[in-house]
Amino acid sequence: MKQTSMANWLGEMAFDIELDSHHLIIDADLKVGGENKGPRPKGLLLSSLAGCTGMDVVSILKKMKVEDYDLKLNVEGELTEEHPKIYHTINLNYIFTGKDLPIEKLKRAVELSETRYCGITEMLRKAATINTKIIVNGDEIK
Amino acid sequence: MKQTSMANWLGEMAFDIELDSHHLIIDADLKVGGENKGPRPKGLLLSSLAGCTGMDVVSILKKMKVEDYDLKLNVEGELTEEHPKIYHTINLNYIFTGKDLPIEKLKRAVELSETRYCGITEMLRKAATINTKIIVNGDEIK
Repeated sequence: MKQTSMANWLGEMAFDIELDSHHLIIDADLKVGGENKGPRPKGLLLSSLAGCTGMDVVSILKKMKVEDYDLKLNVEGELTEEHPKIYHTINLNYIFTGKDLPIEKLKRAVELSETRYCGITEMLRKAATINTKIIVNGDEIK
Repeated sequence: MKQTSMANWLGEMAFDIELDSHHLIIDADLKVGGENKGPRPKGLLLSSLAGCTGMDVVSILKKMKVEDYDLKLNVEGELTEEHPKIYHTINLNYIFTGKDLPIEKLKRAVELSETRYCGITEMLRKAATINTKIIVNGDEIK
């Protein structure tokens, strides 16, 4: 299966990104000649990871009949100092809130995404160390 | 240096992505329970690559006093059949149009991005084969 994205240069540092028939603008920071019309492209890698594993987790939990909760994913990438600047470390937190949450099912859903379903995790771990935490109502779950 | 992205679950398969103080919605296809409110997360990896190297190229060309051209980047990822589905091959085309374009400078700008500046290229090539082409006014440049 193939997937395609197109980037159309808009002048200066801005590009219109076309993906799945949707559009978004990316742009550089003012410090490097951009106008901040949209996010930086590098961070989209982190967003891709959060979205990919987030969708896995909510769909796995739905199959487990776990549906009444909130979920945020916070993903932080640490860049090397030297060019090319890559994320050498990525810290990914699954932040659940809700009442009487089934901890073992949450852990299992995250584990299934990490080890079996999330292609973005699989690709990025070849380049970066990915550290994950599961946080439920403010407390980290071991 | 650290960069952060947050994904907030909106219900079903949709997430609000926060990145560099901008927001975008990602969603799954209708076939897998989504509502297509935004693009798929996996493809953002391709968009990240196109945007990262695209910004490199336009800023390098600007330093070379090359500014009067159009640029599109088409990036196609080929997914494995098995889970986790990763892009095993990525085909990246730099599509320039314009009059009297300085071919050697275009090639040099792309080469500098690929080999020195683009961190996303550097990360993804650890997981995928990245094939690049430079196309100027419809013809591939060797």
